[in-house]
Amino acid sequence: MSLYKTAEKIQTMEIRGAGKIARAAVEALKEHDRTIDPASLADYLEEMEQAAGILLATRPTAVSLPNALHFVMNSVRKASSLEEAREVLRSRADAFIETSTTAVERIGEIGARHISDGDVLMTHCNSQAALACILEAHRQGKEIEVFATEVRPRNQGLLTVRTLNDAGIPAHFIVDSAARYWMNDIDLVIVGSDAIAVNGAVVNKIGTSQIALAAHEARTNLVVAAETYKFAPRTILGELIEIEERDPEEVLPADVAGGLRYVTVHNPAFDVTPAEYVDLIVTEQGAFPPELAYLIIKDYLGWDIREFQKTFEIDHRDQE
Amino acid sequence: MSLYKTAEKIQTMEIRGAGKIARAAVEALKEHDRTIDPASLADYLEEMEQAAGILLATRPTAVSLPNALHFVMNSVRKASSLEEAREVLRSRADAFIETSTTAVERIGEIGARHISDGDVLMTHCNSQAALACILEAHRQGKEIEVFATEVRPRNQGLLTVRTLNDAGIPAHFIVDSAARYWMNDIDLVIVGSDAIAVNGAVVNKIGTSQIALAAHEARTNLVVAAETYKFAPRTILGELIEIEERDPEEVLPADVAGGLRYVTVHNPAFDVTPAEYVDLIVTEQGAFPPELAYLIIKDYLGWDIREFQKTFEIDHRDQE
Amino acid sequence: MSLYKTAEKIQTMEIRGAGKIARAAVEALKEHDRTIDPASLADYLEEMEQAAGILLATRPTAVSLPNALHFVMNSVRKASSLEEAREVLRSRADAFIETSTTAVERIGEIGARHISDGDVLMTHCNSQAALACILEAHRQGKEIEVFATEVRPRNQGLLTVRTLNDAGIPAHFIVDSAARYWMNDIDLVIVGSDAIAVNGAVVNKIGTSQIALAAHEARTNLVVAAETYKFAPRTILGELIEIEERDPEEVLPADVAGGLRYVTVHNPAFDVTPAEYVDLIVTEQGAFPPELAYLIIKDYLGWDIREFQKTFEIDHRDQE
Amino acid sequence: MSLYKTAEKIQTMEIRGAGKIARAAVEALKEHDRTIDPASLADYLEEMEQAAGILLATRPTAVSLPNALHFVMNSVRKASSLEEAREVLRSRADAFIETSTTAVERIGEIGARHISDGDVLMTHCNSQAALACILEAHRQGKEIEVFATEVRPRNQGLLTVRTLNDAGIPAHFIVDSAARYWMNDIDLVIVGSDAIAVNGAVVNKIGTSQIALAAHEARTNLVVAAETYKFAPRTILGELIEIEERDPEEVLPADVAGGLRYVTVHNPAFDVTPAEYVDLIVTEQGAFPPELAYLIIKDYLGWDIREFQKTFEIDHRDQE
Amino acid sequence: MSLYKTAEKIQTMEIRGAGKIARAAVEALKEHDRTIDPASLADYLEEMEQAAGILLATRPTAVSLPNALHFVMNSVRKASSLEEAREVLRSRADAFIETSTTAVERIGEIGARHISDGDVLMTHCNSQAALACILEAHRQGKEIEVFATEVRPRNQGLLTVRTLNDAGIPAHFIVDSAARYWMNDIDLVIVGSDAIAVNGAVVNKIGTSQIALAAHEARTNLVVAAETYKFAPRTILGELIEIEERDPEEVLPADVAGGLRYVTVHNPAFDVTPAEYVDLIVTEQGAFPPELAYLIIKDYLGWDIREFQKTFEIDHRDQE
Amino acid sequence: MSLYKTAEKIQTMEIRGAGKIARAAVEALKEHDRTIDPASLADYLEEMEQAAGILLATRPTAVSLPNALHFVMNSVRKASSLEEAREVLRSRADAFIETSTTAVERIGEIGARHISDGDVLMTHCNSQAALACILEAHRQGKEIEVFATEVRPRNQGLLTVRTLNDAGIPAHFIVDSAARYWMNDIDLVIVGSDAIAVNGAVVNKIGTSQIALAAHEARTNLVVAAETYKFAPRTILGELIEIEERDPEEVLPADVAGGLRYVTVHNPAFDVTPAEYVDLIVTEQGAFPPELAYLIIKDYLGWDIREFQKTFEIDHRDQE
Repeated sequence: MSLYKTAEKIQTMEIRGAGKIARAAVEALKEHDRTIDPASLADYLEEMEQAAGILLATRPTAVSLPNALHFVMNSVRKASSLEEAREVLRSRADAFIETSTTAVERIGEIGARHISDGDVLMTHCNSQAALACILEAHRQGKEIEVFATEVRPRNQGLLTVRTLNDAGIPAHFIVDSAARYWMNDIDLVIVGSDAIAVNGAVVNKIGTSQIALAAHEARTNLVVAAETYKFAPRTILGELIEIEERDPEEVLPADVAGGLRYVTVHNPAFDVTPAEYVDLIVTEQGAFPPELAYLIIKDYLGWDIREFQKTFEIDHRDQE
Repeated sequence: MSLYKTAEKIQTMEIRGAGKIARAAVEALKEHDRTIDPASLADYLEEMEQAAGILLATRPTAVSLPNALHFVMNSVRKASSLEEAREVLRSRADAFIETSTTAVERIGEIGARHISDGDVLMTHCNSQAALACILEAHRQGKEIEVFATEVRPRNQGLLTVRTLNDAGIPAHFIVDSAARYWMNDIDLVIVGSDAIAVNGAVVNKIGTSQIALAAHEARTNLVVAAETYKFAPRTILGELIEIEERDPEEVLPADVAGGLRYVTVHNPAFDVTPAEYVDLIVTEQGAFPPELAYLIIKDYLGWDIREFQKTFEIDHRDQE
Repeated sequence: MSLYKTAEKIQTMEIRGAGKIARAAVEALKEHDRTIDPASLADYLEEMEQAAGILLATRPTAVSLPNALHFVMNSVRKASSLEEAREVLRSRADAFIETSTTAVERIGEIGARHISDGDVLMTHCNSQAALACILEAHRQGKEIEVFATEVRPRNQGLLTVRTLNDAGIPAHFIVDSAARYWMNDIDLVIVGSDAIAVNGAVVNKIGTSQIALAAHEARTNLVVAAETYKFAPRTILGELIEIEERDPEEVLPADVAGGLRYVTVHNPAFDVTPAEYVDLIVTEQGAFPPELAYLIIKDYLGWDIREFQKTFEIDHRDQE
Repeated sequence: MSLYKTAEKIQTMEIRGAGKIARAAVEALKEHDRTIDPASLADYLEEMEQAAGILLATRPTAVSLPNALHFVMNSVRKASSLEEAREVLRSRADAFIETSTTAVERIGEIGARHISDGDVLMTHCNSQAALACILEAHRQGKEIEVFATEVRPRNQGLLTVRTLNDAGIPAHFIVDSAARYWMNDIDLVIVGSDAIAVNGAVVNKIGTSQIALAAHEARTNLVVAAETYKFAPRTILGELIEIEERDPEEVLPADVAGGLRYVTVHNPAFDVTPAEYVDLIVTEQGAFPPELAYLIIKDYLGWDIREFQKTFEIDHRDQE
Repeated sequence: MSLYKTAEKIQTMEIRGAGKIARAAVEALKEHDRTIDPASLADYLEEMEQAAGILLATRPTAVSLPNALHFVMNSVRKASSLEEAREVLRSRADAFIETSTTAVERIGEIGARHISDGDVLMTHCNSQAALACILEAHRQGKEIEVFATEVRPRNQGLLTVRTLNDAGIPAHFIVDSAARYWMNDIDLVIVGSDAIAVNGAVVNKIGTSQIALAAHEARTNLVVAAETYKFAPRTILGELIEIEERDPEEVLPADVAGGLRYVTVHNPAFDVTPAEYVDLIVTEQGAFPPELAYLIIKDYLGWDIREFQKTFEIDHRDQE
Repeated sequence: MSLYKTAEKIQTMEIRGAGKIARAAVEALKEHDRTIDPASLADYLEEMEQAAGILLATRPTAVSLPNALHFVMNSVRKASSLEEAREVLRSRADAFIETSTTAVERIGEIGARHISDGDVLMTHCNSQAALACILEAHRQGKEIEVFATEVRPRNQGLLTVRTLNDAGIPAHFIVDSAARYWMNDIDLVIVGSDAIAVNGAVVNKIGTSQIALAAHEARTNLVVAAETYKFAPRTILGELIEIEERDPEEVLPADVAGGLRYVTVHNPAFDVTPAEYVDLIVTEQGAFPPELAYLIIKDYLGWDIREFQKTFEIDHRDQE
């Protein structure tokens, strides 16, 4: 698939999901490399940077996209010859795709160790990483049960209980409002994440933060399962993670809402769980307390904060 | 309407709502008094106690029913002549109906004083008492806005925003999961109550307790608006308020749930908000901190705990 | 001093302080009784109610004034003859003056029992009731030290340390900002109160609530010393205690503030400490947890909430 | 047994336990009444007051003793003839003994309602009232398990598990330090009390307050089971409940401690659990939140705080 | 300016402020390098270490001074020739001065991203770094308002509101005691820092910690704006940051205090805000949670903890 | 002592204590190196890995053992010749033994800086590292007192007070239940640790976590003194630290327990204190907040998490 095709599919959300977007973008870089025939290292870098820029522009607020592109391009930029650059691009791209593909499985292995035989779990929304932990624990023969919330307005909870049901894991389906009602019976809450800020704040499906608060009130641990590309480097520069406001019609049909002139329907897709309510973040690189988010960004995502500042300074000026 | 007709309608839930049930039962006592012609005070008391017993048995867990019957019968029992007894029955019955009918209005007047010009409120479910406070504040010319949750699974939030809309009060409609997301913008949370225990714990629509927790976390006051007949005398004897488990189909259609053999759907109708998260309970008799629930039961509902013990002791033996 | 003279002095704040205002108003009722010669009980009551109304109108937000007038007039209203009414007025007036005069001393005796030998105390502002506890503990030979805050903007802390110094009690004078800095060395915080709401919330000098919060954070008990006439009956009807906004010039001289067009100077005189940060309220009638404020209002101040409602309903209509 | 014999046995601790002391003292009043032949009501009152004074002096810090004596004498003092006085003394004495004897059983009935089928409980020390709740719940067929702490230094936990074992209730015996370790598995903590202060603070076996803190941290409710005569009226006057410091040899044998000149061994018998960590106090008169302690003292123990003040004022002067 | 001149000016506090002291000391090193003509690398190092020692001794508790000197000298020590050493000294000195000079501006850019349009902010004292964030947000067109405390005893709050006023930012001037009173209306608290310990504890103007506590109570985020040279390396070795006790006369004039023999006036300049009340620390190198203080010290200030230990071990022995 | 002899002594617990086990294992590696005569680097590595494996297998859950072996072997594996490998083995082994031997002393020096003159401390169990801090503070002439708990069931508290007594430090010996009773008088709690997880959770003697909770409630800091080899690398991979369940007879003699068929005696040796209750961890490498545990594991223990994953993956498969 050509660079432009991929860019289009990401932009139109034909390609969705943090992992899929990231891998598609990296594949597109590889594909683009195959289609060009640059005369010099300088030409190559120029072309590839341009390609990366096109991909980056498709979803400016996605977290996985810049992380993936940076993972590849950062090494390419340091190459000292055209051959090396092209070699590096391919190997880094393959490494990213490999790690990213197996990340969920790896998270499952690590996260499953936090689930004990006899545990009653709670989850919210439909996170592949969180489910991987639960499914792996079940596969290891641990007897577990899972409370899954409905997740209004898009009811992803139904997907979750279907998955659990298919695996033969006893599940309990409840409305979102009932989380605190059951919390004293829960041994561990396990959720996914859409993005993680440098202070360890976890952006996830709306409702996560009040479940986390109820867990904290009842001394119940909460584990976040998240691939490392969910960590948001720009938050180091103070950038706030934007909370997407989705179509209000998901919450209330337009024909009903339309008749209510004094009523505004809001539909924020995510909320922010502060680090103090998160016990541990399980990534494919190991488990860490949320306060170490910066280390993930630096050591695993490979961002050099000084160069990074320069890049964003440019952005920043544009913004004003 | 005859005693038996009323009893039937309460039992079949044709007559619903704490206030309506209470008033219907008291009306039925009055009606019954009109239809009988007892020879002595003793005969009269026996007949009326029997009538009260029939009414009480229709909804053994309702809170307003025993409170209403007791309010009338407790005075009747103390009468020293047949004439006095019948007189007392009618006057107490009328007093109860009068107070009960105007209670919501009175609560609105008292509760509105806690709402200041410019306040942003949040409410959950569709409490007439809570709405009375909001509507009265609006009527007084205070500029207010109200966040109302959807209230899964029966979506009573839609009724709430319709009422607000009709009154011209700007309202914001959100899913239940979004309560904590907006809490830092809220000046006051105001909710109703289905029952209040002697330790001040408030039983209300599922989800109330996690909104209360989020309000407490953000130093936002929470006011409960409740008629005095919502206070549950039996909790003084240790009785726990039973949480009704409603039809799971309200949460997930049976045809969907039926295909998921490892999945159980739960639908508790209420949860319990501890007294420490409640700033004030506004009743038609004034505003009180939740810790004073016992005083309401004793001074306003007129229960004499010693007689009361005898009654319940009998119940209690039956129960075993 | 005539009724009108007293009314004027209260209004112009020549007579100040909750206790002095209350006693002056009651003295004025006695004086007024002496100057009139009513023909009947009805005439007498009309005249005295009018007098009480004039006094009440001088400071509509003061808490002690309606409590004092009610303490006397409530009994007068129940008299069945002119003679009895006049007798009751005098005896109730004397009783109020006597109790009120000795209240601080009595509070000192009760409060001193909460101070142990070797204690390090903290106080804020210049409360006679709080100081009475401290001085009495010292008089009993307990070795104590007291941290007193400065109390910007009117520096009442200086009065406090002068009193302590005169009594030979070692005192520490600190700026208001330093309260939390020393809190781990404090055994007990003891403050006065300007008004107490039905939910136990304590209105006192600005800054009290953040000292109370810091005390709570450090598991240091906080005792409020307050005469019973500081409890605010109207809060039962939902009335909020108004926080007086004083002259900004106390905070910043007008010539300085005047040159700063974008700057507003605020000077709220009081803040509200929630009941959960108050261990005990010491009154001249005994020590109570803040949640029992309603009992003080009912049992000691003698308000019958039902009559009381009627009165305020009238007020309330006027207000709109 | 004569008045003096009883007084001696209480003083020498031959008669022990709050309930036994209280009943013995009341029996002694009855006995003393039988042995005297007063000429007038005045003589009778003088003699009986003296007798009450002798009994009171045996254990000045016991809580049940003044409550029991007051329960009887307070009514006697109001009698208008010698015959009435003697009659009242006997009937009040019998009433006290009856209520006190059945109090534990009554508490068991009320408290058992807070225990649900399947609950895992925790208790500390060896409270008859707390055990009554547990045993009654078991008798009703509820499947329960109980964690009991060892209770150093006197190991009363062993008595507790023996009682549970004899009843066939599965019990878990742990060291005091392990309470928080198991707390997440506990559904309800239930303990007794030695004394309860007017602010709802519960004085009980050393270690109770840290178990209560751990329960609060984990959103686990804590119920206190206590006869009404455990409420301490003097705390209304600011009196602090004295914490008994017992023989250090209970903690460390004197021969070991003797060799350690820089080491002091402390052995406080009780600690104080603040009201905020107590969900409910179950008495034989019903269940109440701790904040209502004053009502128990006034309504059930019958103390009139104004007379009471006079009594203590005398005490107080003596003390200095 | 010669080394000695600079040393004198730092010691006499003619040169004040963490940034100015740091830059002056580095300038003095550069100047000293220009004035000497060492024969060998060893001679040069000896001379320069001596110079650094003289500068360090001027204010032994200042945090920026050792950080600045270390930033330069640490690299110099690693040089392998005299030429390299002198070259390194100049370039590191210039780098430090450059970074330090622009640090506040850079912090402003990063911190401004945490301020949203419509925000109401609170600040305490007169921090250039905190103000930079506010001014930059205003410059970007965000509509903001700022509550500024008075900051007794030196009233730096007046400087703050002057700066805000000059920029046309609406400001509110309040006494220090009023911080909690307004906290529910505040969206973000932003303060500077004098020193930050390895556990993330923030040393700042007295009063900061109680504002932070009130912010935490109300779920209001608190951001600390601080240049990296405010982080205190010695705290890694357990050293506590000394809280300066300033002249009591700032609080109470000596003539007043002198007359009060039992009164001690205290004037601690700073207090310590624990990491749990700090959401984020914004430095010129990015934003971090307070728990990462060690990383700043290691990665940005360049301290090698092992060498560092040796240095301090010498100090430490001297100290005893 | 031969490799096998050492392995046996570790397994039979003749060699005990984290430090002693670690050093014995490293000595055994050195000894083994002396007894073998490998032909090639490959042979050498194979033999030494086997030796390390034997040692590791003796106590699979000990934390210090894999840390010590890894510290040595990790460098050995990177050698490029037989000679270098043997040289590296000896030097790393010596370095480990040296650091480990002096670690406690070094911790004492760093930790003592957190103890101020006049402090009252509390400790639990008998940690050499915690005692080192206390003894060093005393040696520096600081006047301190120490509360030491008894530490049921093995009464290590007695060892602690003996040590304090020998040093002439005033000590207070209390039962474990009395920790919260005294907490308001405590300036600093200082304890050791058996293992520390990657999220900063501290595994230590049963009872530590409830003391930590009580310290947090009273705003009393808690410092953990721990050698770096107490940090548990496997927790990065999600491994939970196993809590040893010791012989129940330590708690209750078998002859007593045997007679109680419904009673189970539990004896968990450790509990887990969450990072939020720990102010600082003092290691021989400096003081850090608990959230930085990962850095200790990576920077000081030298684990490369990627290789480490491979190792454990093998383990992990074996486990199933």
